[in-house]
Amino acid sequence: MAYPRRFGALRLLFTLMLPVGLRPMIRAAEAPPALVEQWGVFELTLAGPASGNPFTEVTLSAAFQQDGRTLRVEGFYDGAGVYKVRFMPVTTGAWTYRTESNRPELAGRTGRLTATAPGPANHGPVGVRNTFHFAYADGSPFRELGTTSYAWVHQTEALQEETLRTLAAAPFNKIRFCVFPKYYEWNHVEPGRYPFVGTAPDRWDFTRFNPEYFQHFEKRIQQLRDLGIEADLILFHPYDGGHWGFDRMGAANDDRYLHYVVARFAAYRNVWWSMANEYDFMREKRPADWDRFFQLVQASDPYQHLRSIHNGARIYDNNKPWVTHASIQNGSAVEDYARAMLYRDVYRKPVVFDEVKYEGNLPQRWGNLSAEEMVLRFWEGVVAGTYVGHGETYLDPNDIIWWARGGVLHGQSPARLAFLRRVMADDPVDGLEPIDKWQDNPFAGQPGQYYLGYFGRQPRTSWKFELYKTGVKEGMSFRVEVIDTWNMTITPVPGLFVAKKQGDYTFADQDGKSVPLPGTPFMALRIRRVEQAD
Amino acid sequence: MAYPRRFGALRLLFTLMLPVGLRPMIRAAEAPPALVEQWGVFELTLAGPASGNPFTEVTLSAAFQQDGRTLRVEGFYDGAGVYKVRFMPVTTGAWTYRTESNRPELAGRTGRLTATAPGPANHGPVGVRNTFHFAYADGSPFRELGTTSYAWVHQTEALQEETLRTLAAAPFNKIRFCVFPKYYEWNHVEPGRYPFVGTAPDRWDFTRFNPEYFQHFEKRIQQLRDLGIEADLILFHPYDGGHWGFDRMGAANDDRYLHYVVARFAAYRNVWWSMANEYDFMREKRPADWDRFFQLVQASDPYQHLRSIHNGARIYDNNKPWVTHASIQNGSAVEDYARAMLYRDVYRKPVVFDEVKYEGNLPQRWGNLSAEEMVLRFWEGVVAGTYVGHGETYLDPNDIIWWARGGVLHGQSPARLAFLRRVMADDPVDGLEPIDKWQDNPFAGQPGQYYLGYFGRQPRTSWKFELYKTGVKEGMSFRVEVIDTWNMTITPVPGLFVAKKQGDYTFADQDGKSVPLPGTPFMALRIRRVEQAD
Repeated sequence: MAYPRRFGALRLLFTLMLPVGLRPMIRAAEAPPALVEQWGVFELTLAGPASGNPFTEVTLSAAFQQDGRTLRVEGFYDGAGVYKVRFMPVTTGAWTYRTESNRPELAGRTGRLTATAPGPANHGPVGVRNTFHFAYADGSPFRELGTTSYAWVHQTEALQEETLRTLAAAPFNKIRFCVFPKYYEWNHVEPGRYPFVGTAPDRWDFTRFNPEYFQHFEKRIQQLRDLGIEADLILFHPYDGGHWGFDRMGAANDDRYLHYVVARFAAYRNVWWSMANEYDFMREKRPADWDRFFQLVQASDPYQHLRSIHNGARIYDNNKPWVTHASIQNGSAVEDYARAMLYRDVYRKPVVFDEVKYEGNLPQRWGNLSAEEMVLRFWEGVVAGTYVGHGETYLDPNDIIWWARGGVLHGQSPARLAFLRRVMADDPVDGLEPIDKWQDNPFAGQPGQYYLGYFGRQPRTSWKFELYKTGVKEGMSFRVEVIDTWNMTITPVPGLFVAKKQGDYTFADQDGKSVPLPGTPFMALRIRRVEQAD
Repeated sequence: MAYPRRFGALRLLFTLMLPVGLRPMIRAAEAPPALVEQWGVFELTLAGPASGNPFTEVTLSAAFQQDGRTLRVEGFYDGAGVYKVRFMPVTTGAWTYRTESNRPELAGRTGRLTATAPGPANHGPVGVRNTFHFAYADGSPFRELGTTSYAWVHQTEALQEETLRTLAAAPFNKIRFCVFPKYYEWNHVEPGRYPFVGTAPDRWDFTRFNPEYFQHFEKRIQQLRDLGIEADLILFHPYDGGHWGFDRMGAANDDRYLHYVVARFAAYRNVWWSMANEYDFMREKRPADWDRFFQLVQASDPYQHLRSIHNGARIYDNNKPWVTHASIQNGSAVEDYARAMLYRDVYRKPVVFDEVKYEGNLPQRWGNLSAEEMVLRFWEGVVAGTYVGHGETYLDPNDIIWWARGGVLHGQSPARLAFLRRVMADDPVDGLEPIDKWQDNPFAGQPGQYYLGYFGRQPRTSWKFELYKTGVKEGMSFRVEVIDTWNMTITPVPGLFVAKKQGDYTFADQDGKSVPLPGTPFMALRIRRVEQAD
């Protein structure tokens, strides 16, 4: 995928920098199409005006065509007279493109590219599968297990590199972070770059982006992509409080910023759009602004990357059609799978508890979960058919706290979440569904085939084998494993459990067998149907 | 409020039955305006065509005016050449009206009425107050505490009268019941009347209503009103299963039926509209039908009575603008106040758990709650800032089960719900609000003033006095009462508790005092601020 940028785009740039009179001849020579892998990034680089304000005065877009299909993408100004159009081919094969612009030197540029088969680690962008779950574009399930480090890309280079090394060894396949820098407790450092031209802290020309800021940011997106980590980009946040004023730029600047961000980042397959963190804490925005932001991003992004918005105290109406999944902050919902499950029912979209308090030792109650409680929230969320996000807030002499700045992880939960991820890897590809909704039945799975249950804080010494009736028939055989979610062990229970109907609702084992449990908290069960030879 | 029907309307009917030539003279005599109390029912009776199909061929409506305000109401055919227009004056004072019709004898009828001050038991219709709660039109709080008896009006006269006697002595201020009869387990009796002209079970002329059916039905609405009970009318339901076919009449008949029902019933102040029970179990309807029904009722009802829809397995999008409150069925949500609370956050409307399983001994799990569990659900719901509905399903040798057919109540919960209603009578008029949302804090109330907390099944021997910080200041004094929700006692705790800040989030008693508790389940606390003289 680096290929077209290294060769094809350079050649194009070279071509386009020739005097105009020479171009037709060269174009008539029919340069071979650029090669880019499916869901990789094709980048077209064009020379254009550097005078005036290219960000406001120059329009640029391109239409990419394959057979009857057209995807329109916005281009962007990258500084120093350089304009770019980025494109993610969503299918393999031949694509052609043609640019449009209000400047003749940028308009009507045409060319071809060939999208090749994706590499082994490239599964495409993530979308919704089976109403409540996620999958990559190639059909592989995406079993979300995220973390949060709001401002990691706005720290020193050394710290950012350390964060990337930590992520490479961590279990997370998504990370939430802010496009704008953050000014908040434990994180009052100024970033090395600013998104606009101007003078820190608060004298900015919001009509002129700083390309270097965004070049750096997208380098981080690419590095996450290469680690197999989705970049859940937080487009606005309240942790500015007017210090820089990026939280109160006004509607025209907000919209121009969104167009610019989508033009730059949408071609990266691992991008998700989060309109905001704690959107309702941004007092300068009106409710209608959020609808408009969603609609703008929806209209501008030809790939329809996932779109969400994270709440403070008031949840956005996630039933609105432009929301692809609910991104929930709630301090108590995932203490209980039956709470977590309710959000699925009201939204009928994937539910991601992106903030559930953090493992750490801050005085604030949102930042002092024990590791056991952090892990419990993941398991409760999983058996609710939802997804949960991690965060870590251990006090540090240098205030390098993962949740805000990245660095290294100190907590005890990530190892258990890596274990959970291994367990989840065996989940049905269509996701875990509550087995017996709105009853006290802490199992999710696929009826008759696969069950994952979790007993939370409750210490039990046994569990009577009992499955809700859906999908179960008399005589079906099941294997049971006892999972210690804290000590990270999976212990098969000897023998098989054979279903026998009992009463109107459930099947028990034909001999009434129970599953012995060790009497400690945080135990889970995995039950899988086995085909019997006899 | 009976006055205008007894005298005014009769006089009008007499007037209108005169040969047309005589009418102007009489009208010139300026008959005194009819008198009707505010939120009472004014009924205009007109003679019109009895031939053809009056239900489909005759249109009738009236505009009622006061100052610059106009309310348009639909009239209806009541059989035997009698047409009626019902009107609920929403303000006191003089109103004038004028009819419109496609028949000259019904068109252009004009008249006057005077709305007098409401009687002492008349608080007007119920609407939404303070986002999550209810109030009568006169400002009195309506603290919903409902029950369900789906088909009580379709039973023998004697049984209906018994049901009314039961309701008169019961704590419920709302009852849910079906306009159409019900054909379901434990209730396969044919009703005494049918809503359409035709032959039972399934040969109906859906274009011809049976006025007697609706006359009887509205008599019951009036009797409930006179008992101070809201009539939550279920307009469609699936418990027909094609036996009569009222669940599959087709769109044109559905819509005509809704217009007829609204025309007949909307003037009764105690009417609520429930589009359906278990709407999603009605396989003959498409999702868009429900939107249309809501919109039709919303457009036809000049008083904007409360509108909801009750779910089976799939919850309707209660964020849609025509839904005034969420009417939820969920078998486990109100086992835990923190689950119940979540629905408030996603809808920002009053949440009524209209079905939470029933007290009884049916083999079905939805009908075999213990009384303790029924009462627990009410208290969990109340401290979540929501409302809960009762139902009773004790097996009976004659299959007279309250939930379906009414009769008498056998359970142990109604006495406890009467006790709860007395407790709720002291609640702040703006309703109970969660004190510290999304934390494990089972208190609702008004910060700094009033707290109601509930410990559910958890037996506790003490509770350390601790209030979340909002609204509390150092030195504020509070009285505490211990409420045994099952044994129905309220025990004041001696002395005062004086607030002193502890940590970032809460206030404790200045001496660290705790509230002693008896170590039994189902205990609640009420905490009220007291003004200190010193």
